[in-house]
Amino acid sequence: MSRESDLLLSLRALATDPAARGLLDDAAVLEVGGATLVLTHDMLVEGVHFLSEDPPGDVAWKLVAVNLSDLAAKGARPIGVLLGFGLREDASWNKAFVEGLGRALAAFEVPLLGGDTTSLPVDAPDCFGLTAIGIADGPVPSRSGAQPGDLLWVSGTIGDARPGLRIARRERSGPSSLVERYRRPTPRLEAGRKLAPIVSAMMDVSDGLLLDTQRLASASEVRARVELDSIPLSDAYVEYEEGDAGGRMSAATAGDDYELLFTAPSGRETEILALSEDLGLAITRIGLIEDGNGIAIYHDGKEVPLPHRLGYEHS
Amino acid sequence: MSRESDLLLSLRALATDPAARGLLDDAAVLEVGGATLVLTHDMLVEGVHFLSEDPPGDVAWKLVAVNLSDLAAKGARPIGVLLGFGLREDASWNKAFVEGLGRALAAFEVPLLGGDTTSLPVDAPDCFGLTAIGIADGPVPSRSGAQPGDLLWVSGTIGDARPGLRIARRERSGPSSLVERYRRPTPRLEAGRKLAPIVSAMMDVSDGLLLDTQRLASASEVRARVELDSIPLSDAYVEYEEGDAGGRMSAATAGDDYELLFTAPSGRETEILALSEDLGLAITRIGLIEDGNGIAIYHDGKEVPLPHRLGYEHS
Repeated sequence: MSRESDLLLSLRALATDPAARGLLDDAAVLEVGGATLVLTHDMLVEGVHFLSEDPPGDVAWKLVAVNLSDLAAKGARPIGVLLGFGLREDASWNKAFVEGLGRALAAFEVPLLGGDTTSLPVDAPDCFGLTAIGIADGPVPSRSGAQPGDLLWVSGTIGDARPGLRIARRERSGPSSLVERYRRPTPRLEAGRKLAPIVSAMMDVSDGLLLDTQRLASASEVRARVELDSIPLSDAYVEYEEGDAGGRMSAATAGDDYELLFTAPSGRETEILALSEDLGLAITRIGLIEDGNGIAIYHDGKEVPLPHRLGYEHS
Repeated sequence: MSRESDLLLSLRALATDPAARGLLDDAAVLEVGGATLVLTHDMLVEGVHFLSEDPPGDVAWKLVAVNLSDLAAKGARPIGVLLGFGLREDASWNKAFVEGLGRALAAFEVPLLGGDTTSLPVDAPDCFGLTAIGIADGPVPSRSGAQPGDLLWVSGTIGDARPGLRIARRERSGPSSLVERYRRPTPRLEAGRKLAPIVSAMMDVSDGLLLDTQRLASASEVRARVELDSIPLSDAYVEYEEGDAGGRMSAATAGDDYELLFTAPSGRETEILALSEDLGLAITRIGLIEDGNGIAIYHDGKEVPLPHRLGYEHS
């Protein structure tokens, strides 16, 4: 067991309230005054989650988007955010960050409610935190509800952010649409709200489709069978990377997708595809839930070995 | 106007929701369902808010305490926290931090509800954030309710943390009780809840008594007259620093007190002093609210010049 797993276990020992869901979920779910409150907090650290040269407005966008993506996975509508803002020496950077924050909050119609600003030691990498507060008007999906026989689905396209990061780093050339997917992900808030009553389990894909599928399967104590051929790729991904088995495996182990991964009982396909149509957002069946545990990958009807790394763990 | 004030103005422009209280208060106040939710987020950065050599358990304690102190100032009872945890390479440091977190959460009977852990770049100063969530069962004081004729009060003793910091840095000798006040402040949660229905304005003293009094006066559009002789000092402070006018001015401009500063209408003195007795916590009248604006300091009945620096601004 890794040191980080040890640490997570010791944190879980402090998270005894049922609202914490044993820290096994994307967000805390708290019943307050007749309302169901959903709370999440994610950090972004320069050099870990974003590049020093990323535009400040996009860093702010990503900070908002990754947190709202957790609310989306709970079917919650955001009602506000608290910002932890490590100020740079460079006032124009800070200003551009706040402008980007304003654009993101306006795009998702969420107010800034409070938070903290702090100076940082000279040369320290920048550090941000955001707490997003949401309300769920219906059932709140967890990661742990998947049942054998359920189908496995994912929204949007998978894998775009990794080539986007490489293009942003000037390690390769490619279209700005891929860079956008890395820098300015879109939390699937409306899809999350509409899917919440249908799904048996849901989470967002942030660390890699296979890794997050494994987490869902583990929390649900089931086995997830993923059809590699079904993983939805964007045209840009296929054009600039590869659409073959290797390219699909690469997409499925990249991070930063911020799409919704969910399971739903067999028989809800028509409803889900109609919802996809309504939303103008691809929702693709990528596999099946079975008895057992772990994750299995199939290609052309045959099981293929798991890659050594299923995704990206920031810590 | 400083660059930071400019930035704060641009953040305020994003905080249009009434729950944000224009970012002028210690916490956001949100009506959810039938409950009044109070939310606050503070960061602690190594080298800015704590010393590298501070015991990890005390860093965790302080992170919890400074956030709960904001809830105390709103008369709220904490119902949970979300943690943003920048992990060190040093696993034993992380472990000791989590143990200290556990002690603080147990002491204040607050559960950990969720949050995020992140690795940090090598040699980066450590960075933490905590979001505290509380519920107010009665009126929620703001900074802006002070009226001319109100009396100005403060809980506990003022100034202990500054010599505590100097002793911790081994810049001077002194008792561990002062170091404790720097490293392990006590949020005045019970006092805050019991004072909330009595006060006209309340906030916590985190950046220096005079600076925070000025902020309260400014938010309330009144003038605060502070009696230097009345500022409550601990025996340890008087013994190891000075209890004279200079020592009192030094105490009043030090930070990290985490006491409650409040105003109440004249005529509530008996009630407040009885509450002080009940709580076993000093509550001392230190001044008066008048028409006008700003802050004035009196010593031996005569107005004395304001010090150049009224407190400590982390950012």
